[in-house]
Amino acid sequence: MRIALDAMGGDLAPRSTVCGALAAAKENSAITVVLVGDEQAIRSHMPGEMPANIEIVHTTEIIEADDEPVRAVRRKKDSSLVVAVSMSGDKKVDAAISAGNTGALMTAGLLYAKRMEGIERPALAAYIPNRKGRVTLTLDVGANMDAKPAHLVQYAVMGSLYAEKVLGFERPTVGLLNVGTEEAKGNDLTKTVFPLLKEADLNFVGNVEARDVMEGACDVLVCDGFVGNVLLKSIEGAASTIFSVLKQEFTSSLINKVGAAILKPALVRFKKNMDYAEYGGAPLLGLGSPVIKAHGSSGEKAIKNAILSAARFVNHDVNTVIQQALLTSMKESE
Amino acid sequence: MRIALDAMGGDLAPRSTVCGALAAAKENSAITVVLVGDEQAIRSHMPGEMPANIEIVHTTEIIEADDEPVRAVRRKKDSSLVVAVSMSGDKKVDAAISAGNTGALMTAGLLYAKRMEGIERPALAAYIPNRKGRVTLTLDVGANMDAKPAHLVQYAVMGSLYAEKVLGFERPTVGLLNVGTEEAKGNDLTKTVFPLLKEADLNFVGNVEARDVMEGACDVLVCDGFVGNVLLKSIEGAASTIFSVLKQEFTSSLINKVGAAILKPALVRFKKNMDYAEYGGAPLLGLGSPVIKAHGSSGEKAIKNAILSAARFVNHDVNTVIQQALLTSMKESE
Repeated sequence: MRIALDAMGGDLAPRSTVCGALAAAKENSAITVVLVGDEQAIRSHMPGEMPANIEIVHTTEIIEADDEPVRAVRRKKDSSLVVAVSMSGDKKVDAAISAGNTGALMTAGLLYAKRMEGIERPALAAYIPNRKGRVTLTLDVGANMDAKPAHLVQYAVMGSLYAEKVLGFERPTVGLLNVGTEEAKGNDLTKTVFPLLKEADLNFVGNVEARDVMEGACDVLVCDGFVGNVLLKSIEGAASTIFSVLKQEFTSSLINKVGAAILKPALVRFKKNMDYAEYGGAPLLGLGSPVIKAHGSSGEKAIKNAILSAARFVNHDVNTVIQQALLTSMKESE
Repeated sequence: MRIALDAMGGDLAPRSTVCGALAAAKENSAITVVLVGDEQAIRSHMPGEMPANIEIVHTTEIIEADDEPVRAVRRKKDSSLVVAVSMSGDKKVDAAISAGNTGALMTAGLLYAKRMEGIERPALAAYIPNRKGRVTLTLDVGANMDAKPAHLVQYAVMGSLYAEKVLGFERPTVGLLNVGTEEAKGNDLTKTVFPLLKEADLNFVGNVEARDVMEGACDVLVCDGFVGNVLLKSIEGAASTIFSVLKQEFTSSLINKVGAAILKPALVRFKKNMDYAEYGGAPLLGLGSPVIKAHGSSGEKAIKNAILSAARFVNHDVNTVIQQALLTSMKESE
């Protein structure tokens, strides 16, 4: 199996991407990682000889985090991100991964990996850590801003199959993000979607409130891209603010520093559990070939995990499974 | 000035409401607090003689937290919540406060306090604590699920005036909750609202991402009620989950307990800063007479603060100021 990795994408690239690729290639020799990026920069982070299951595809351009996505993808055709995704679209590799510009990855995905048959809008999924020690696969978190009811049903089907095949959740529970748990709650979109999800062949557990997401109320959470983005960034922001303020408090006096030193292992363990970068990349579901978004701040371990989860995506042939499920459900609703 | 307080509403009522009312009445003798609820229950929490600026209006029914709002307001006409709000609508008091069922309070507000002229949809505002040590007044957080662009502009005007008059923020900054900071970002609603806010007579600072809200990116944050509810509950949920897990970690061994004991003052101070119940009640803006929602878990101090902020609401005649501003802006756009 061959997986293309955008070696230049992400805050810590290319050190993180090269080291993550080496770690994944070492752990699973069945995976060949194709590092796409500036060859010299890549090699500078590679100590000793290049392993047999690592390849380099040299590119000359880089899409930056603050580049305007559509323009960047159109203009920077020899960027590491575009080349990695187009290799996936051309079936030169089995999957592509990038920790770079999310908007550019979605744009490149639509342009080069195309859409799956019957999918109007692919969805960007994200992992939100929860107290049950697993993650809540949340989609869409920003690919599609004005979703229609049918889109959300497709997200539920795709997310459920991905959670089962790649994350290993048995009969994953599916929830609809809403402002209350009662069926009649919500806006026009959620009120229309609720009965559709109830009828679908899913383990639908009903509406889930935002405050219960991190308590692990469901395995797969469905929402429109605007709301999903707000949910994800609210949680990120709250966690980040809380940790910054705690850090400030914990270093405000000598005695507090002593207390913090005692608690350090507990704090580190806790932060690790809450850090979804640890769970590997999140997929763009509904594309013709697998494209995975790794967190922008991915370090070596997160990149390694993204590669290993991409391998499960490919091994379980998740795209074919999703495609068949969608065609079946479309036939049923005809 | 007379303020009606639903003495039976909230998780800790009637102890919290009676004690909070006593504290507020003691601090500001110009306020008469009318405790609305079961007289015997109210008196049981009142040690000694009743102060001159406390009154009781006896009611026989209670709207519970899990009652269906519309039905509860229609059927329980002698409930403490309905009677308190209708006293505000009938100008028997200057404002009404409840820490009870939010949906019921909104329903009773629309029914008994009516809408301000020109307001199609009143908004529920909430305080979100931020790192700058103040709060971000966020509206709407759930009164109106499918908002139109004009509604959001009205929220901005109302929120800005409230923040200035009641919270004491000078020329408060107004932000639009969105998925990115660039003008072109967002869904159909935010893309339409952005230029309207830019043109309005507001200190508009543009789009604000959910992750920057707690960093204090703006004083007043505008969004539709569905998204606002998700934002508020995501932050509440993240904070609650983080604190529960930390507590678990900090009590998991004797040595950790020692560390936690050292840090306890810092942790308590931190939790207090993050606790928006400390900031008093949040208003339902756009109603004909002032109605304030206190947090469901309000204790004595939060109730006291809600009464004092209701008094500022009344003293600054915020409803008249808002009404004039809206009529002026409606004339201008004619």
